[in-house]
Amino acid sequence: MEFMKGIQRKETVELADLLSGDYTGKTVSLNGAVHTIRDMGEVSFVILRKAEGLVQCVRERSVPVYRAGGGCAAATQEAADEGREIADGRLENTDNGPEIPSTELKEESTVTVMGIVSLEPRAPQGVEIRLTEIKVLSTPAEVLPIAVSKWKLNTSLETKLALRPITLRNPMERAKFRIQEGIVRGFRDFLHSQHFTEIRTPKIVARGAEGGSNVFRLDYFNKKAELGQSPQFYKQTMVGVYDRVFEAAPVFRAEKHNTTRHLNEYTSLDFEMGYIDGFEDVMAMETAMLQYVMKLLSEEYEKELLMLNVTLPDVSKIPAVTFKRAKELVSEKYSRPIRNPYDLEPEEENLIGRYFKEEFGSDFVFVTHYPSKKRPFYAMDDPRDPKYTLSFDLLFRGLEITTGGQRIHDYDAIIKKMEARGMDPEELASYLMIFKYGMPPHGGLGIGLERLTMRLLNEQNVRETTMFPRDVTRLEP
Amino acid sequence: MEFMKGIQRKETVELADLLSGDYTGKTVSLNGAVHTIRDMGEVSFVILRKAEGLVQCVRERSVPVYRAGGGCAAATQEAADEGREIADGRLENTDNGPEIPSTELKEESTVTVMGIVSLEPRAPQGVEIRLTEIKVLSTPAEVLPIAVSKWKLNTSLETKLALRPITLRNPMERAKFRIQEGIVRGFRDFLHSQHFTEIRTPKIVARGAEGGSNVFRLDYFNKKAELGQSPQFYKQTMVGVYDRVFEAAPVFRAEKHNTTRHLNEYTSLDFEMGYIDGFEDVMAMETAMLQYVMKLLSEEYEKELLMLNVTLPDVSKIPAVTFKRAKELVSEKYSRPIRNPYDLEPEEENLIGRYFKEEFGSDFVFVTHYPSKKRPFYAMDDPRDPKYTLSFDLLFRGLEITTGGQRIHDYDAIIKKMEARGMDPEELASYLMIFKYGMPPHGGLGIGLERLTMRLLNEQNVRETTMFPRDVTRLEP
Repeated sequence: MEFMKGIQRKETVELADLLSGDYTGKTVSLNGAVHTIRDMGEVSFVILRKAEGLVQCVRERSVPVYRAGGGCAAATQEAADEGREIADGRLENTDNGPEIPSTELKEESTVTVMGIVSLEPRAPQGVEIRLTEIKVLSTPAEVLPIAVSKWKLNTSLETKLALRPITLRNPMERAKFRIQEGIVRGFRDFLHSQHFTEIRTPKIVARGAEGGSNVFRLDYFNKKAELGQSPQFYKQTMVGVYDRVFEAAPVFRAEKHNTTRHLNEYTSLDFEMGYIDGFEDVMAMETAMLQYVMKLLSEEYEKELLMLNVTLPDVSKIPAVTFKRAKELVSEKYSRPIRNPYDLEPEEENLIGRYFKEEFGSDFVFVTHYPSKKRPFYAMDDPRDPKYTLSFDLLFRGLEITTGGQRIHDYDAIIKKMEARGMDPEELASYLMIFKYGMPPHGGLGIGLERLTMRLLNEQNVRETTMFPRDVTRLEP
Repeated sequence: MEFMKGIQRKETVELADLLSGDYTGKTVSLNGAVHTIRDMGEVSFVILRKAEGLVQCVRERSVPVYRAGGGCAAATQEAADEGREIADGRLENTDNGPEIPSTELKEESTVTVMGIVSLEPRAPQGVEIRLTEIKVLSTPAEVLPIAVSKWKLNTSLETKLALRPITLRNPMERAKFRIQEGIVRGFRDFLHSQHFTEIRTPKIVARGAEGGSNVFRLDYFNKKAELGQSPQFYKQTMVGVYDRVFEAAPVFRAEKHNTTRHLNEYTSLDFEMGYIDGFEDVMAMETAMLQYVMKLLSEEYEKELLMLNVTLPDVSKIPAVTFKRAKELVSEKYSRPIRNPYDLEPEEENLIGRYFKEEFGSDFVFVTHYPSKKRPFYAMDDPRDPKYTLSFDLLFRGLEITTGGQRIHDYDAIIKKMEARGMDPEELASYLMIFKYGMPPHGGLGIGLERLTMRLLNEQNVRETTMFPRDVTRLEP
């Protein structure tokens, strides 16, 4: 019987090993995709693309190119053809196949190369591999329709997205989503350290949390169902169970407008916390989380930040201003009349961002006490003036990236508010159950991951920071 | 201007602090939900439920009960009523409200209590709080319809799920999902340490990866769309970008059969890795991941494991057997004729699990080389015998919890296989793009999180280990 016992060390080295250990003068084996080949006559430069960066290899004309044995399967096939015995279920390791002309080595071929490591300050990682052997693992069927190996992809967003599976191979493109990974890691790790529990809530729901017209509907075994616009009801429910919870998961909004900041499917970073003294506790938690995220990015994603020329914003302190006051400040400073005291236009958001950058040097600003009619029914109204709520948005360089606030936790209060809005409590009975049987004072927020990434990377369109965006015209790739 | 600077230390202590520091004889303040009240005449025991466990409090009759000031909002309201000035946007902290009769303190009330810590070996955490003051933060509108505070919920699965928002408050119920959190954390942290990048792929797709009839369809701006059955195409795509990737996200299957092991929405733990020598590399990675997860659970989720009486399985080595051989072994040992050599019935899976437990003491077994016609078109056929694939399932106590294998990476090979199956390559052009322009040899797997949790906790129905299950009859809560 064969047993799996865990991972075994491979013969190939990883880039991190290569750079941390002293490999100079030693022969190593490593694999990767052929990013570019530059033929200089006697020698050619073969740049390997690995997940962690590019590696410069030098090939003299005499260095042989082999086809791979074709993986375990082909190796075993060969063994079987030759009548050699094969242990039950166990396949042998790959070997070299036949030698092939070096013209068979192409850009986007994947290879395992062998060579001697030498220091080379002009090479991407300060090292160079002087090749002794190349084994081709796979060969593309066609030449790339776009020069992925260029430093910056020189093409329209439209083309970039149509060819997304390929254009993401460009080092600058892929660096964006490494940083996005870092944001999510930071969000989770920080909240975990603050005793939050990670939850997993359903995306097919009977009724969305936000209501309105922007819901995707589907047929669920002859019942009407919707795709969740937010995990709101579920995360509040779970505050009754774990006190503090979070989730990083997709949400769906059937927005018909095709703007630079809307997506029909995006990642919402949600948290919700019980036993708060006010919504300020939620803002404080978000501030601390952002501080943690920026620190993590500066420590572990330095290479990507450098590549994208990104300077991390200062989040040591974030100003907070009321909705009403923010409108006044902007109106005064930029001589812009207030048209509607209960609404914030995108242009106004932008100016608020500008104001706090100019006056306080801050890229972020919390805008608090949004008008009640602009917030969902579960938002807690301000007892001082119930036209406003105990809630906030966080603007990052003039764009809303977070909506949050304190929620109603009292059963009678939420029923009253629903009725005042003409809603039928019967329809949300399984959500209202949590208030009927007792809930602590609580609040929370939702952050749009792609928007946060977009602002952080100074991109102008949220599709730039979405791996495979979904919008009104885009369902593929 | 007010600034948010991060979290400030609260006056209330957390359970972890209480147990780690030396608080004996000291006065502390802590909050929680009233889990039970046991009236003994002169004193009553008030058991507080916090996220991390239960805390025993003792209340003498004379200890006053106050209503909370009602949070910042109410405190500020009061200040406003009294004409006191409130700084812009800044609300004051909560204070005590009026004293109320102690009968107002109810089960599922949430409170902040003050009291003196004393050692008490018979109490849940070995400590007891002798109360000096109780502040009621919220009061339920009705008495719980089910005794959540019982050690084990004594009710049908049907009732448990109908009242899920409440029944999850039961300490044993919530312990299950803490362990589930731990599994996901371990999965991610281990893969991160192995240079995998976390990806986020769309759930609204043009076409599912598995095809067939079990897809949920929706109208996407007058185009036909589906809910993703698996991130398969996208994770393969991202192997061309990052070499190794993973995702833990929801998948959707419109299965019409309502069994103890099927869900219509579940969490799939997916990873995909390039530059493999064979699918054994994928099995080895999964084995090492499970080793890491079990270690993490034993170290950080000990309390929950103890509460649920769970012994972690030994994953130091996992046997691997071919599909064909597994069927023979089971047929011989349990005198069961092989009815269909190319199919594995649930009963057979169960017996394979039993066989490897009896013969090798293993709770897990890899079954390799599944028949080609039982696998999707992208599975790589075994060159030795193309009726079988270079693939595997992982069974845990006789239940399939993982499907994985090596994928075809050659463009011509995948086109040929699609055509042989009567599929139209045009329809999957944006997926096939990755092979056309070059892909490394690669493979991966998908793990059903809820099933893995179910087997680990020795539950008999996958709904027991799903926070809010979706099945043919269940769309709420």
